[in-house]
Amino acid sequence: MGPDSSQDAQTVSQMGEFGLIDRVISGREQSPGTLIGPGDDAAVLAAPDGRVVATTDVLVENVHFRFDWSTPHQVGRKAVAVNLSDIAAMGAVPTGLLVGLGCSPDLPTHVVDELSAGMWEEAQQVGIGLVGGDMVSAATLTISVTALGDLQGRAPVTRAGARPGDVVAVAGRLGWAAAGLAVLGRGFRSPVAVVGAQRVPEPPYAAGPLAAAAGATSMVDTSDGLLADLGHVADASKVAIDIRAELLEVPQRLTEVASALGADARHWVLTGGEDQALAATFPPDRPLPEGWRQIGEVAEGSGVTLDGAVYEGTTGWEHWR
Amino acid sequence: MGPDSSQDAQTVSQMGEFGLIDRVISGREQSPGTLIGPGDDAAVLAAPDGRVVATTDVLVENVHFRFDWSTPHQVGRKAVAVNLSDIAAMGAVPTGLLVGLGCSPDLPTHVVDELSAGMWEEAQQVGIGLVGGDMVSAATLTISVTALGDLQGRAPVTRAGARPGDVVAVAGRLGWAAAGLAVLGRGFRSPVAVVGAQRVPEPPYAAGPLAAAAGATSMVDTSDGLLADLGHVADASKVAIDIRAELLEVPQRLTEVASALGADARHWVLTGGEDQALAATFPPDRPLPEGWRQIGEVAEGSGVTLDGAVYEGTTGWEHWR
Repeated sequence: MGPDSSQDAQTVSQMGEFGLIDRVISGREQSPGTLIGPGDDAAVLAAPDGRVVATTDVLVENVHFRFDWSTPHQVGRKAVAVNLSDIAAMGAVPTGLLVGLGCSPDLPTHVVDELSAGMWEEAQQVGIGLVGGDMVSAATLTISVTALGDLQGRAPVTRAGARPGDVVAVAGRLGWAAAGLAVLGRGFRSPVAVVGAQRVPEPPYAAGPLAAAAGATSMVDTSDGLLADLGHVADASKVAIDIRAELLEVPQRLTEVASALGADARHWVLTGGEDQALAATFPPDRPLPEGWRQIGEVAEGSGVTLDGAVYEGTTGWEHWR
Repeated sequence: MGPDSSQDAQTVSQMGEFGLIDRVISGREQSPGTLIGPGDDAAVLAAPDGRVVATTDVLVENVHFRFDWSTPHQVGRKAVAVNLSDIAAMGAVPTGLLVGLGCSPDLPTHVVDELSAGMWEEAQQVGIGLVGGDMVSAATLTISVTALGDLQGRAPVTRAGARPGDVVAVAGRLGWAAAGLAVLGRGFRSPVAVVGAQRVPEPPYAAGPLAAAAGATSMVDTSDGLLADLGHVADASKVAIDIRAELLEVPQRLTEVASALGADARHWVLTGGEDQALAATFPPDRPLPEGWRQIGEVAEGSGVTLDGAVYEGTTGWEHWR
């Protein structure tokens, strides 16, 4: 199939696998570290550190996103963002993405175009590209993204290094996506600030490597919600984490939205996922790096508390429950 | 949910995301190069070469596999094999796998157990493990695997380096999986040799790095079928490739099966995918490495021919067509 007929094709079936891949890839600029990009059996990326960081997340239509709530472009950005956030949470910088796309033969080609444009836009915010992938036929639109990263000589920051006495801090927004989800769930499309946060997270990518360079002892991204993900840190590090309510900012905008919906803004901040904020622990004796704000302390013991008490309510979100 | 109740859970919904991940991962041995394995935001693998090879393939139930034809264990092996084959086709050795699994809440837990056992069995054949992944709810069982690899100081072997005068050679089986597919498609379950080849490929993993070390000028895995994949090499290298029929082995077993089905065994050898054989081009002046056999030559021009003539018939398999 020549390029001319490809231009006119209306569905992925008419476009064909190779035409579609070409459409996602052609004309895009790869990073200097992409030694071999799309089109071969595998990609080859520079790994100057001698180690490679790797993570994968799968997004399924009507489970992780809905096209009546989000555009394909927004879904593409989110699919990439949730993976880049995991790279940042190790203290690494991303180097490349691989995308497995399962879609129906009947899917209009423009949906793939917009999805890939969204993925590229988010990727290019951090200077990387889509270096490889696979496109297959699937009844449900399924986007599986793998992100690779480089530690730039730093030690990876795991969930297991928090020590009693450390400061607990966060970078990025908390509760905004949960507020947006609540709004969308009631059938509203505004306020745009919270709905937009649900559609496309704004992870604090740079804050991850900054935290690692500043000596963070543990770090996690808050995709399951702040309390749940700090729970993972507490478990892995065998420590207790206490959040101080007075330090936990509840943005005025969220309070307003919660008031309108009869909801609890602080609950969104404590348990909402999908903002992809970062949470980390730092030694107590030095200033926090840019973009980080203290919310609590690490102590001996186990579990996560709010002002010393177990928080009553769901502590995050688990699939299939 | 404690470990005791997890043991008794019958579906992935009852098990929950974290219980299920624990079940896939726990008790497994990771490779020495796995610096951080499953359980954190991302995995960290050694990349001693300073470059990392990466590829991803997605398998969807009833598109790429059927549980009335294959067991979950066989599907798990195949999902890993098709990715490891791509790593080999660059001349690299695999270092780790990430797996995104989308499955229904109603899926029996033992299916996940068998799938993951198959994935681990294939992975451990080459000394690696599942270092990370994601498990999500999806209506259709979807397995997306990303494989990473290391070039061990060798140049990657792309599709673009074939030169006129080079020898064309293959390693691994050709046509066996296609024969098995034909048998299964007629409702038979034997001969086991060809049906087994369709269920689980046996890619010649070691032949990839051997070819790279022997100076292979181009290499590809034949997942789309020999003619189609050599077509990719011809296009990328801007050369013509001629296969000599007298050099192209058509195994007696395939001839027998084809005869019984009224099919053409050579057609399977030329166009069948899924055996994950490797095809490569080598300089003409040196012996082929172990496991490789010549099937033709590279010339100036374009396209792929059989004894100088265009092969009449489909040249491979494309999604959505």
